[in-house]
Amino acid sequence: MSRNKPDIGRVFHALGDPTRRAILDKLSRGPISVSQLAAPLAITLAAVVQHLQVLEESGLVQTAKLGRVRTCSLEPAGFQVAAQWIEERRLHWDRALDALGKLLDEEK
Amino acid sequence: MSRNKPDIGRVFHALGDPTRRAILDKLSRGPISVSQLAAPLAITLAAVVQHLQVLEESGLVQTAKLGRVRTCSLEPAGFQVAAQWIEERRLHWDRALDALGKLLDEEK
Repeated sequence: MSRNKPDIGRVFHALGDPTRRAILDKLSRGPISVSQLAAPLAITLAAVVQHLQVLEESGLVQTAKLGRVRTCSLEPAGFQVAAQWIEERRLHWDRALDALGKLLDEEK
Repeated sequence: MSRNKPDIGRVFHALGDPTRRAILDKLSRGPISVSQLAAPLAITLAAVVQHLQVLEESGLVQTAKLGRVRTCSLEPAGFQVAAQWIEERRLHWDRALDALGKLLDEEK
């Protein structure tokens, strides 16, 4: 598992897929095993493992082997990177609107 | 331009591309014309127009024709949908951790 700061492009790419979002939905209720994760999703275990790899590489999921069972849980790092990216643009945008408002006020 | 609630899959897919994120970065400083947008990005005007279409369809950008010039600006709707999706998972996750904490406390 990568311990570097998640790459924003990877995070958004990972979040763009509906099956991966369904996996994150399930994991947001608490950690579960890979096979428990695969059962209700109507896709093969191999496909789930592949999606999990993408999610792990983008810092959205972490997995750990406890005995013979691999358990998955949400990894906050990827979520934080995505939320921060959005928030920064929103701040810029608010400031640009404020500047425009002041300009219009001065014109009056 | 679609006035429906932006589709979360489209929003994350749109945000997964580095050129589209660069376009949003530029627009977060304020509205500009399509040609002003294309100039520093070292890609063709046609490519910019294509990216803008994806961004518009996912509710991240709006464009308006003022006279002969098409001006682009950020559209908050797509950003809100993405931020909300992330926030909801984070809340779930916090609650799951709280529940686990209580369970461990009770075991003591």
